[in-house]
Amino acid sequence: MTMQPTVERWGLFDLACTAVAEGNPFDVRFGATFRYQHRAVQVSGFCDGSGVYRVRFMPDTEGLWSYETFCDLAGLNGVTGEFRCTPPSAGNRGPVAVAERYHFRYADGSPYYQIGTTCYAWAHQGEALEQQTLRTLATAPFNKMRMCVFPKHYRYNANEPEFYPFERQTDGSFDWTRFEPAFWRHFEGRVADLQALGIEADLILFHPYDRWGFSEMPPEADERYLRYAVARLASYRNVWWSFANEYDLMRTKSMADWDRFFRLVQAQDPYQRLRSIHNCRGFYDHAQPWVTHQSIQHRAPENTVQWREQYGKPVVIDETQYEGNIPESWGSLTPEMMVSRFWEGAVRGGYVGHGETYLDAADELWWSKGGVLRGQSAPRLHFLAQVLARGPQRGYDPVAGGLRSGFAAASKGQDLYLVYCSHQQPGLLQGVLPDDADFAVEVLDTWNMTCEARPGTVSGQFQLPLPTRPWMAALLTRVEAP
Amino acid sequence: MTMQPTVERWGLFDLACTAVAEGNPFDVRFGATFRYQHRAVQVSGFCDGSGVYRVRFMPDTEGLWSYETFCDLAGLNGVTGEFRCTPPSAGNRGPVAVAERYHFRYADGSPYYQIGTTCYAWAHQGEALEQQTLRTLATAPFNKMRMCVFPKHYRYNANEPEFYPFERQTDGSFDWTRFEPAFWRHFEGRVADLQALGIEADLILFHPYDRWGFSEMPPEADERYLRYAVARLASYRNVWWSFANEYDLMRTKSMADWDRFFRLVQAQDPYQRLRSIHNCRGFYDHAQPWVTHQSIQHRAPENTVQWREQYGKPVVIDETQYEGNIPESWGSLTPEMMVSRFWEGAVRGGYVGHGETYLDAADELWWSKGGVLRGQSAPRLHFLAQVLARGPQRGYDPVAGGLRSGFAAASKGQDLYLVYCSHQQPGLLQGVLPDDADFAVEVLDTWNMTCEARPGTVSGQFQLPLPTRPWMAALLTRVEAP
Repeated sequence: MTMQPTVERWGLFDLACTAVAEGNPFDVRFGATFRYQHRAVQVSGFCDGSGVYRVRFMPDTEGLWSYETFCDLAGLNGVTGEFRCTPPSAGNRGPVAVAERYHFRYADGSPYYQIGTTCYAWAHQGEALEQQTLRTLATAPFNKMRMCVFPKHYRYNANEPEFYPFERQTDGSFDWTRFEPAFWRHFEGRVADLQALGIEADLILFHPYDRWGFSEMPPEADERYLRYAVARLASYRNVWWSFANEYDLMRTKSMADWDRFFRLVQAQDPYQRLRSIHNCRGFYDHAQPWVTHQSIQHRAPENTVQWREQYGKPVVIDETQYEGNIPESWGSLTPEMMVSRFWEGAVRGGYVGHGETYLDAADELWWSKGGVLRGQSAPRLHFLAQVLARGPQRGYDPVAGGLRSGFAAASKGQDLYLVYCSHQQPGLLQGVLPDDADFAVEVLDTWNMTCEARPGTVSGQFQLPLPTRPWMAALLTRVEAP
Repeated sequence: MTMQPTVERWGLFDLACTAVAEGNPFDVRFGATFRYQHRAVQVSGFCDGSGVYRVRFMPDTEGLWSYETFCDLAGLNGVTGEFRCTPPSAGNRGPVAVAERYHFRYADGSPYYQIGTTCYAWAHQGEALEQQTLRTLATAPFNKMRMCVFPKHYRYNANEPEFYPFERQTDGSFDWTRFEPAFWRHFEGRVADLQALGIEADLILFHPYDRWGFSEMPPEADERYLRYAVARLASYRNVWWSFANEYDLMRTKSMADWDRFFRLVQAQDPYQRLRSIHNCRGFYDHAQPWVTHQSIQHRAPENTVQWREQYGKPVVIDETQYEGNIPESWGSLTPEMMVSRFWEGAVRGGYVGHGETYLDAADELWWSKGGVLRGQSAPRLHFLAQVLARGPQRGYDPVAGGLRSGFAAASKGQDLYLVYCSHQQPGLLQGVLPDDADFAVEVLDTWNMTCEARPGTVSGQFQLPLPTRPWMAALLTRVEAP
């Protein structure tokens, strides 16, 4: 038995105990109740193989916490201890949650402007490529990664993974009742690597791209898997749950199955991590109470306002096709279009995701395996992130009807307006601002990544000369009265 | 009385007689019956002012024609004569009509691939600008002009026309019962100028952009006007009737009015010129039997296949926004997008229209007043016209589902496939062709206007390397067995 005397706020406390069980050690009920003053949080543990049982916990409050284990095995029952929760270290802003109905915020109150990317199977590619992916991410603009728990079988994805989530039997089949700790230790290591880079891990729990049977397990195996995943992973503060990628392509799962999975995780997860499910064609009913935000596949982020109104939750367009040059139309966006779709979502109060699919002789496409970025959108998404980082604190919401030229979003107090002209090239930007205030003007070229402050201010009905080219935007900032 | 002894096929025979009427000369019933062998065509004439009465006729058959006038005025009744219809001169291919359900063809059997443009009010700008427009058109790719009969009042359109279609009274109002021949002589001269350039004149009979009252005349004035327009203009072989631009913005006209106007012209026009009506938002019911083709305003020509199926008639997207840089989103397309929308329509078996709206100190925007072209789309539309001119004779029809990369259209006999990749940039074009034939490959860059013949042929399932950039297309031509 080991224990840590201190753990930082939103960090991970890990308690490991050893015991020998008769029968299947993964059937042993093990967990702990964590207490802080009057609060008690009951948390499930998991078997980590070789007689090791672990329970993990993310404390959200600084101070002295105590715990007491519960277990079917008498030797692991009633183990008690304490740890002190210390202030978060630099860069630890806590988990992300929904805020202001349509937006996200870190637990420390700072806004989370999502610039997501997708490398579905990056954690199943072996050490060399995975380290390369992490090096790429270290200088990329992304603060969310969509990634599959299960390995992936698809076009450009023929390689076998090093690890499997279940014990493989001599006939090649898997024992759905026994997990393979090596797989999970490796996988959670990747989640921790992302956390160290400040990147949220949107974990895709099921997907249809499969040759091993993980997409067609019996119901009891699905549930056992979900419980295990939650027990192992939920305590990482950067974890989000994505119940499926393209759920509607999984023929053996019904809508009732998805409802059940959501509710199971909702009941099991002590931290209520973000929960979503991603479509191919038709949407799951994002209005269900267990869905925290919309995870959308659609080529037109221009619909963001409609989706916000329809479901009343944050709109995350996790897939709006990818920058690349593969034959498939979903993977041959120009970098200009990839960037533009981010902006189209942003000025409507939504959040868009990136992916890259450039043909590669070794089939190392970023969208699936990670590796290196070959495209031109990423630096422009960094520029967008910088613009968004200038505010507003509570997120941009769409301005009804836009301005006259270009769509626009504004901060809630109308202190900031962000106008985007997309593929249009107005030589003159026109619009109507509040006429009781003056606004400073910055003209942004979202492709060339320039920001030009214009002299003077505008107010009420205004017009603003723009260069005749596409991808222009403007940031209008209320000037405080002197 | 004058007469021409000969007139070429699809040319214009014009008979002028003079007489003095009591009362309103525009109320005089005058016309003629034209006979060729067993055929008799009754044609209404019109008063051209100063006691001149004219009847015009476009013969469609070579040989000897005779005529006999009918008139309320005894002196103009029963005038007879003959003329010989001779073969058409070079460049005269006759009027355009619908062919193969979704396409157009000249009367001489040659296909008409429409590359339209719009200069709504160009014929109301005075001699200097109108001549400049004609010089521009002489080297432009356009074979159809959308233009208003009535002058236009709108943004960028504040100038007063030189002529009005009705007699103006001293109080500034118009006498709806008396036409102004100077207006009509000038206007039909412009129609003839277009004809000489091989350009169809899609005459917009009503429109909402008005400060003179022409959009709100009483019903009897509307009908008198339509009869007069048909009597004067229908005999020009390049005339098409567009009943309105943005009919749905004309609040004083009901759907029943539009039906009535269509049926009146359908009954009056001896040549059954093409008839359409153009929407702002909701479509008129293009399935009505008096509508020959769909004249659509929509930003997404990608819907062409759906519109073809819905109404079973040719799809002409006369307005899909314009190349330009005005603040209005409908007039700030990049040239790339303007060109792309033409191709999007073309590979779905539709026809798209051009317009240009670049800001100009003198408010001379091509879309309305004509003048000069300032944009970059026109040469690319010429390139498209050249590609279309290579066939097929019976028009391109969409290939269900497209090819794997890019949308595609094919000739009816599947001798020719035209594939367009639009804003996508596949580095590898994949698709399925008939596997019982070989196809020669030409790779087209629709923006850079290059055509590169590739060595060898493709057949059945094929793939084709493309440069990684947008606006690429391919023309696949069946190779005859040796």
